[in-house]
Amino acid sequence: MTYPRACDSLWSGATLVTMKDGLYHLIEDGVIAVHQGKIVWLGARAQLPEITAAEHHHFDGGIVTPGFIDCHTHLVFGGDRSAEFEMRLNGMSYAEIAAQGGGIISTVRHTREADENELLNSAHQRLQHLLKEGVTTVEIKSGYGLDIDNEIKMLRVIRQLGETLPVEVYATCLAAHAIPPEFSGDGDKWVDVVCEQLLPRVAQEKLADAVDAFCEHLAFSPAQTEKVFAAARGLGLPVKLHAEQLSALAGSSLAARFQALSADHLEYATNADAQAMAAANTVAVLLPGAFYLLREKQQPPVAAFREHGVPMAVASDANPGTSPVLSLRLMLNMACTLFGLTPEEALAGVTLHAAQALGIRESHGSLECGKVANFVHWPVARPAELVYWLGGQLPCTVIYQGEKRDSTF
Amino acid sequence: MTYPRACDSLWSGATLVTMKDGLYHLIEDGVIAVHQGKIVWLGARAQLPEITAAEHHHFDGGIVTPGFIDCHTHLVFGGDRSAEFEMRLNGMSYAEIAAQGGGIISTVRHTREADENELLNSAHQRLQHLLKEGVTTVEIKSGYGLDIDNEIKMLRVIRQLGETLPVEVYATCLAAHAIPPEFSGDGDKWVDVVCEQLLPRVAQEKLADAVDAFCEHLAFSPAQTEKVFAAARGLGLPVKLHAEQLSALAGSSLAARFQALSADHLEYATNADAQAMAAANTVAVLLPGAFYLLREKQQPPVAAFREHGVPMAVASDANPGTSPVLSLRLMLNMACTLFGLTPEEALAGVTLHAAQALGIRESHGSLECGKVANFVHWPVARPAELVYWLGGQLPCTVIYQGEKRDSTF
Ligand SMILES: [Zn+2]
Ligand SMILES: [Zn+2]
Repeated sequence: MTYPRACDSLWSGATLVTMKDGLYHLIEDGVIAVHQGKIVWLGARAQLPEITAAEHHHFDGGIVTPGFIDCHTHLVFGGDRSAEFEMRLNGMSYAEIAAQGGGIISTVRHTREADENELLNSAHQRLQHLLKEGVTTVEIKSGYGLDIDNEIKMLRVIRQLGETLPVEVYATCLAAHAIPPEFSGDGDKWVDVVCEQLLPRVAQEKLADAVDAFCEHLAFSPAQTEKVFAAARGLGLPVKLHAEQLSALAGSSLAARFQALSADHLEYATNADAQAMAAANTVAVLLPGAFYLLREKQQPPVAAFREHGVPMAVASDANPGTSPVLSLRLMLNMACTLFGLTPEEALAGVTLHAAQALGIRESHGSLECGKVANFVHWPVARPAELVYWLGGQLPCTVIYQGEKRDSTF
Repeated sequence: MTYPRACDSLWSGATLVTMKDGLYHLIEDGVIAVHQGKIVWLGARAQLPEITAAEHHHFDGGIVTPGFIDCHTHLVFGGDRSAEFEMRLNGMSYAEIAAQGGGIISTVRHTREADENELLNSAHQRLQHLLKEGVTTVEIKSGYGLDIDNEIKMLRVIRQLGETLPVEVYATCLAAHAIPPEFSGDGDKWVDVVCEQLLPRVAQEKLADAVDAFCEHLAFSPAQTEKVFAAARGLGLPVKLHAEQLSALAGSSLAARFQALSADHLEYATNADAQAMAAANTVAVLLPGAFYLLREKQQPPVAAFREHGVPMAVASDANPGTSPVLSLRLMLNMACTLFGLTPEEALAGVTLHAAQALGIRESHGSLECGKVANFVHWPVARPAELVYWLGGQLPCTVIYQGEKRDSTF
């Protein structure tokens, strides 16, 4: 291990929860040396080599975790669906709500009506909440535009969010999210537009880092999904998939065949799906917020993922319809309480395994030499507390790309 | 309606969600006039009478709700149980955890070991979280001391919290929470100590505003509960009860016979219990945090409460074992998602009906003339948003006893 004799900053006085290999790997009384935005040394203070630093920051106890990574969100959208949420609780059926223009189509309408600035401002507001509790990297999907111009508009807003806020943003094109109203009953035709017109433009303008689709009876079939994947891979874009949320279509196995970064939701995934995912190094992204809000009963096959060694990530799925989530930390608790993950697995799910789900495991997701210096100090005694405390906003200090991040955005 | 010609402050520019009679009763473009800490006028701006004010505060849109009231918490305790939470998720059984000194007894041990200052500081930290999201009144129970001195110590700390933080604190003596280790197998004997020694002293020193008990197979029987209730009522103290959480013992009907302020939990309450509670004006306090964390299946009989007109409150049950909750707003979402309350019912549950559960409905819990001026401004478009957004910390401005409350505690 080589390291410079002089570095930009040293951070000491806390227990490091490194999450190396997805495990706590605690280092008590740890020190992190940062140079040019990267971790250049870390270990116990007793082992600290001779190294000078321009700045020395001392935490008075507490723990340091890698920066949190939310690897599945739909944070950019117009309007919200709180009125619809209330109607449903007041006893109105989905059909009645749809008849009143509710459901995803209402979000599509509001997203199309909004200009880039409006979308940017409302997403900025929501993203702030995630940042306040330690998120340093976030993935955001398009998918409420559902025509070429509005999908492009969403992707531009997603790119802008990464420029205006101190957070690394990964953009995903989810044009195959729902069948657009203009293509009602003819999903194949929209898939053709996506593959032949939209994706080539997205790739050329570098507006997305990955391509996603929603493989489900009420959205796109496995055959349609395969078309989208083939087009994406042909353009050099990695893929991921909303799969097995409401029924078993073997979408996750399909995703694995395309070396998908991740398959997400997965309540109805099978043992065979888990095996295929393991072989392809595809991450299982669990989304307990939507499971909770929809009062689902079928849990994702966590035991099978463990058995086959499928890395599990945990994400907010932040979206206006089924998961209006403003806290990734709350998802840690729900992943444990509702899906039976251990706190250690849940924490790996928002750090190392979330990094893998974005294709950045080599540079992000754990406290290791050479990785980007994104980390969070929490004034708690042990990592399980981040999972245990239910709701609220735990105070924390975020170090983003090697520097203390201001918490007013 | 009479009102002064001059008042201390006017608050305008938002929609008032008055919660009069437990309903939204919205007033658009509303104004609240405050004098000497009380609401002296409220209504639409167009109806504002001639009234001068020393201060005029204008909100730029948004809504104003009554201050939130958390009517059931156990916020004062030593230690926390995050390690045990993790052991359980790592597959350890309750019996193994108990054998290692876990469970409520570990909290009793840590609470006894802590001095008043330590208890005050840790409870202060936790209470801050609730305050940041609009809580202006909170109930806190003893029940982890389980001997005379330590129960008194807890009640003193609870009283102190109300003096050191800008929140109205109601103290409840819950000495009949669990059978103390020293009285193992002989709950009757502890009940005698509570009734003959502890409660008279608590009443004399005015350390509690109410008396609570835990009526359950693993705690106190209905007969033992009745003894505690008789002693409390004899001393002029109102009662409330942890009832029907895990089994049906008709504890809530027993509570109603003693004109209890509330019966709490109630998953196994029956139609007959609901009728008895309605006749006695006993509030049903629903605690979705514990239901969620314990993965319970049996839901409280909300339909029966509605049918018989039992007011429903919603509380955090904040406690280290089964509900380490730091957000009352999250409980609004869980009350709707897990128990099927409407957002309007949930909001009444943390305002008017929570006030009734504390015996302060005449002065608190709604925006009405003559009531204490505790209210909260939220920058959202409609009250359902307070319920809809899952997790995070919605920003808000709190007016406490007529004045803007500083948000640094
Ligand atoms: Zn999604
Ligand atoms: Zn309780």
